[in-house]
Amino acid sequence: MTQALRLGMAGGGEGAFIGAVHRMAAALDGDWRLVAGAFSTDAGRNARTGDRLGLDAQRVYASFDAMLVAEAARPEGERIDAVAIVTPNHLHAPMAIAALRAGFHVFCEKPMAISSAEARAIAEAAEASGRHFGLAFTYSGYPLVEEARARVARGDFGAIRLVQVEYLQGWLSRSIDTEGNKQAEWRTDPKRAGLGGCLGDIGTHAFHLAEHVSGLRAEALSADLTIHVPGRRLDDDVSALLRFDGGARGTLKASQVAAGEENGLKLRVHGELGGLEWSQMEPNTLTLRWLDRPAEIVRAGGPGLQEGTTRLLRTPAGHPEGYVEAFGNLYRGFAAAIRGEYGAWFPGVADGLRTMDFVEAMVANSAGDRKWTPVVTGVES
Amino acid sequence: MTQALRLGMAGGGEGAFIGAVHRMAAALDGDWRLVAGAFSTDAGRNARTGDRLGLDAQRVYASFDAMLVAEAARPEGERIDAVAIVTPNHLHAPMAIAALRAGFHVFCEKPMAISSAEARAIAEAAEASGRHFGLAFTYSGYPLVEEARARVARGDFGAIRLVQVEYLQGWLSRSIDTEGNKQAEWRTDPKRAGLGGCLGDIGTHAFHLAEHVSGLRAEALSADLTIHVPGRRLDDDVSALLRFDGGARGTLKASQVAAGEENGLKLRVHGELGGLEWSQMEPNTLTLRWLDRPAEIVRAGGPGLQEGTTRLLRTPAGHPEGYVEAFGNLYRGFAAAIRGEYGAWFPGVADGLRTMDFVEAMVANSAGDRKWTPVVTGVES
Amino acid sequence: MTQALRLGMAGGGEGAFIGAVHRMAAALDGDWRLVAGAFSTDAGRNARTGDRLGLDAQRVYASFDAMLVAEAARPEGERIDAVAIVTPNHLHAPMAIAALRAGFHVFCEKPMAISSAEARAIAEAAEASGRHFGLAFTYSGYPLVEEARARVARGDFGAIRLVQVEYLQGWLSRSIDTEGNKQAEWRTDPKRAGLGGCLGDIGTHAFHLAEHVSGLRAEALSADLTIHVPGRRLDDDVSALLRFDGGARGTLKASQVAAGEENGLKLRVHGELGGLEWSQMEPNTLTLRWLDRPAEIVRAGGPGLQEGTTRLLRTPAGHPEGYVEAFGNLYRGFAAAIRGEYGAWFPGVADGLRTMDFVEAMVANSAGDRKWTPVVTGVES
Amino acid sequence: MTQALRLGMAGGGEGAFIGAVHRMAAALDGDWRLVAGAFSTDAGRNARTGDRLGLDAQRVYASFDAMLVAEAARPEGERIDAVAIVTPNHLHAPMAIAALRAGFHVFCEKPMAISSAEARAIAEAAEASGRHFGLAFTYSGYPLVEEARARVARGDFGAIRLVQVEYLQGWLSRSIDTEGNKQAEWRTDPKRAGLGGCLGDIGTHAFHLAEHVSGLRAEALSADLTIHVPGRRLDDDVSALLRFDGGARGTLKASQVAAGEENGLKLRVHGELGGLEWSQMEPNTLTLRWLDRPAEIVRAGGPGLQEGTTRLLRTPAGHPEGYVEAFGNLYRGFAAAIRGEYGAWFPGVADGLRTMDFVEAMVANSAGDRKWTPVVTGVES
Repeated sequence: MTQALRLGMAGGGEGAFIGAVHRMAAALDGDWRLVAGAFSTDAGRNARTGDRLGLDAQRVYASFDAMLVAEAARPEGERIDAVAIVTPNHLHAPMAIAALRAGFHVFCEKPMAISSAEARAIAEAAEASGRHFGLAFTYSGYPLVEEARARVARGDFGAIRLVQVEYLQGWLSRSIDTEGNKQAEWRTDPKRAGLGGCLGDIGTHAFHLAEHVSGLRAEALSADLTIHVPGRRLDDDVSALLRFDGGARGTLKASQVAAGEENGLKLRVHGELGGLEWSQMEPNTLTLRWLDRPAEIVRAGGPGLQEGTTRLLRTPAGHPEGYVEAFGNLYRGFAAAIRGEYGAWFPGVADGLRTMDFVEAMVANSAGDRKWTPVVTGVES
Repeated sequence: MTQALRLGMAGGGEGAFIGAVHRMAAALDGDWRLVAGAFSTDAGRNARTGDRLGLDAQRVYASFDAMLVAEAARPEGERIDAVAIVTPNHLHAPMAIAALRAGFHVFCEKPMAISSAEARAIAEAAEASGRHFGLAFTYSGYPLVEEARARVARGDFGAIRLVQVEYLQGWLSRSIDTEGNKQAEWRTDPKRAGLGGCLGDIGTHAFHLAEHVSGLRAEALSADLTIHVPGRRLDDDVSALLRFDGGARGTLKASQVAAGEENGLKLRVHGELGGLEWSQMEPNTLTLRWLDRPAEIVRAGGPGLQEGTTRLLRTPAGHPEGYVEAFGNLYRGFAAAIRGEYGAWFPGVADGLRTMDFVEAMVANSAGDRKWTPVVTGVES
Repeated sequence: MTQALRLGMAGGGEGAFIGAVHRMAAALDGDWRLVAGAFSTDAGRNARTGDRLGLDAQRVYASFDAMLVAEAARPEGERIDAVAIVTPNHLHAPMAIAALRAGFHVFCEKPMAISSAEARAIAEAAEASGRHFGLAFTYSGYPLVEEARARVARGDFGAIRLVQVEYLQGWLSRSIDTEGNKQAEWRTDPKRAGLGGCLGDIGTHAFHLAEHVSGLRAEALSADLTIHVPGRRLDDDVSALLRFDGGARGTLKASQVAAGEENGLKLRVHGELGGLEWSQMEPNTLTLRWLDRPAEIVRAGGPGLQEGTTRLLRTPAGHPEGYVEAFGNLYRGFAAAIRGEYGAWFPGVADGLRTMDFVEAMVANSAGDRKWTPVVTGVES
Repeated sequence: MTQALRLGMAGGGEGAFIGAVHRMAAALDGDWRLVAGAFSTDAGRNARTGDRLGLDAQRVYASFDAMLVAEAARPEGERIDAVAIVTPNHLHAPMAIAALRAGFHVFCEKPMAISSAEARAIAEAAEASGRHFGLAFTYSGYPLVEEARARVARGDFGAIRLVQVEYLQGWLSRSIDTEGNKQAEWRTDPKRAGLGGCLGDIGTHAFHLAEHVSGLRAEALSADLTIHVPGRRLDDDVSALLRFDGGARGTLKASQVAAGEENGLKLRVHGELGGLEWSQMEPNTLTLRWLDRPAEIVRAGGPGLQEGTTRLLRTPAGHPEGYVEAFGNLYRGFAAAIRGEYGAWFPGVADGLRTMDFVEAMVANSAGDRKWTPVVTGVES
């Protein structure tokens, strides 16, 4: 009998956004059951969250460390299998490392850490522990992102020439970060967010998607990081030129001051024979354009999908699957890997390290006068 | 502490489509926990389904009746609160009535039953039992359907003049119903599906959506039911003209032989001052058009939403919510009603009776030479 | 040397809409040169229009009859070749018949006339004169309408099962017809517009497009003509069910009170193997959907077009061609026919008669209690 | 009486693309009449083109110079008013200067010339002659581009922060330039095309649109010009970062190897309060997004347009106007300026100089290691 895996959560108290998403994603397919948590350092908030989630009050812990200790002390088969870390960025590394060392698998919100050095420390801890480390590069969980990736890899478009990725939001158009919005506040605080503001929060998603789908590695970049809102301490707008191995050229645009935009992550890849376009806000459609024949609209659940795409779908064509389902695919892949299933995939250590190196190269380039900065990664995927 | 409610399921063995959707929808928000089931009359399939779902083998029952008896015998606080009925249509009424009489709430797949008489029997059983009867008119669970309904009700468009609804699928374009496709087979069998084929399966969704959003009642209709695929025993294509109270005119088109279409449910409503358009395959967008100012694109999570819409959303703007989330909203409303929460809404008895009367009027009209047939409902909503 | 043909115009004085469109359409490809006109019965308006168009004042005539007489008296090679009739509907027949009898070709705004009897009189005059009679069913001049027609005819979709056509406008949502809007005034006056209001003005376009592209003939129809705006004398809203030869089923919706809609003519045709969708407001795209493979987006100027489509295009892919260009294609076909070129096509007598019979069948059915009324045409195309 | 102005054309022999577009654009509104031409240096082709256009054979000249001389010798009121230059780029400057000096107005295809120095020579000749010099930055002739410009200028979006422009084509994805395609051949030949390939051909359009609509001036840029197709001599792909006066940040992407793309010119501008999006392939729609209210869809002919937009439209809402109509608006503005009408606008000398400086800055930057190169213009607009 396939038992649901047991999950403990760090962060995600009432009012937080991403914690609730992790919980829905984990619950969706019955692979996970949330049984423990250290949701908030505010005792009342912590207790209320646990109560609302129907947890046993004894497994709602006052601190992350307390959770690790108490859970590790439980008999095998009753303790948690993994922790989900959904705190601000600066806590990712210490928590992940502690959990890995305590023998738990870790599924962590992105970015991996607030510096490349921290990220490497996580990588080493994961390596040493033999535990899985998953990272919520959610957008790679969309079925049609997998379809896009597989088609590029199969050579449908010939050699790739162009990669264009953009991620436009508008929610930081005003200085809400200094006016009490918690989400905005920590994301624009270098101590809690790290080197990049918009860059770390959504630029990393864009970069990850571009490399993940194109199968290419950016060799060098030229960046322009900007702070548009007076008083803000981290970039709220990012532009970059990219040069990929093999000669492809790329552009990356990410902004949190594109007023009126929602969550506009869009990827386009063009090769010798045609190109593809995928947009997160209509995630069930993948447009393919061709030199010599009409464009095709590949649809979730429709004809023409690769087998790996179909496995990520839950409903027939025309029944929209969304963000929570994409997220659920990561949790499903993570569970499958823990269970040792063949072919299980989820974004992890290599994806995290790569994006941390990207952030550091972007920040370095933007501060200087040189046109190109290499993107170097110590650990290969 | 808010305990999750306990759910037992009838039908939905491995390989079935809609049972899995009910399970995801129920799990999504933590309001429900599946603890029992009679998934299949095939003992092996039943056991495998229960096992895969992690159920206690003792609560995987050989029959629906066995489930009712055994669960009713469990102590309060341990027995199931409700049953979800996800069998073919002809079993809805007997199962629902038995469950209601046994003291359980019922959440049932649509259509309510295979005849208006059966539906009325369910209504009476629900009335007598004091239990809730919910019906999976899933599309009314989409947040922007609620937004549309609320805006019409508020009078944004003035008096309504036009209602156009369509639901186009193509999956029955070939005679797969006689070639081993289980889903197709029972849906085209009058004994198991009822009076209508396409009409009952998706025409009822279209009709429900039209009345639900417009707030109008169809008084009369003129119908053309067609069987396009040779040998099929129930309609696979439906067209109708509708006349609503207050003078609005409507068209309803539903087809399962619109080759190449997926799940194209679309509603348009126009009044004196403007109109709205909503399409299930891009459910997070509601287009409003106006006589005197530019069209507006109202978006899930974006500015301008009614409070009732916002309550149905789980993520910020630009994070697509889909079919499972809409379905989850029905389960959430159903749970809230059971808990006695104020303002809880889910489609139920009145919605079911109304659509059964629609089906019977359609079938009667299509068979005759008279232009108009009234749509009469014995029980008022 | 290919001389431009000479055109005289009836109606289309300053301020009129469709006259200006005819002039642009005729000028676009250099096939026609406007040299004469009787633009208005208001002498000043007539003169000003001629002057603004740079016409020789002597060829700006006080009346249509004066134009016919004077032009017929000019030497061959100097007189007009054809007249364009762009007056209200009730003048189409008398003017067209007079012009044909005077030896001129006629290009006429639709509808052909205000009754089937009048239309037949035109048909006879055209037959007797040996002159061409063209009718401005403009939408059949769009390149991708031709592409759609040719693909249906070639059997790409197998036998046709469904035809859905709609034409939604909102400009008559208010009673502007009684408040000084000239366009609205005559279109809602039975004496000048004929039997149908919305039906004659745009319902005929919809019906023509449906039969033209599907290659089918509607055998019977069931109609609901409505007047939504109080005090209006002709229908402003039309719904119909259609039954085509060969068993296809259709719906037709036309409205001029769909508040907020612009000029929403849309056609969908589905057969056994797939379907097509074309929308006038994005006329350079034709969507093809298939049972077994991804949908295709066929684009004006792009790969995959039939030769007959390409001939109707003036620019490469991605350079939008619009309404005036579609209109120009009719004038081009009309000129080509006059010059005796092989394969020239334009909508003419048969198209006009057919739509008049449609109007009469719709009006008759809507007034009665019978469900179906046959659409009979005396003259075959 | 308003006489049509007389036009002579240089280039545009049979088979050429843009010459035919100029002729349709000039004919559309009756403002211009083509009466003379030197269409080709191939005598037969020249004659055939003149014949097909119905020109007097005496005004079909063997050379551009012959046209200037002969037309200048005709009496006033019979000679041409202006020349349209539609030759490859390297002939623009010598022809334009000669025509201006001969007293004719000039309407020239873009780019203005093959170097900034040449462009300045044209500017001086125009200044000295007192004649008008118009430049075919066609896309600025679209009504909704004017709407966008006017709304930015009025401050609807607050201070502008982001400008994103892209122009994607795929027609040079293969080496058709070395395989007999005339259009491709000269456009990739530095002698005839100038410093930039894709950059000069469509990058200039993108840059012009960005500055024209945003009302901003790019102060510095960072560029990556690439040749993707082996053997090609000029860039076929362009990426750039832009810094505008006032602090706005921009990205510019132009490519002719984006396989499968048609003519994808798209502009997005975001300010403090909202943003706009316009796409050439659906030119009658302008999308406005806002921080605090739903997005709006502004449509050609629909409600909410500025008066200057309405003047550029010929048909009511829902009747698509396209590329030829946009082009016609330039010819209309050019004619109006010649006639001395108040408020006449067309792109001219300042637009041309600016884009030449852009080309030179792009080429210089791309060749070097410095990150930023200023865009300097000697002549202010």
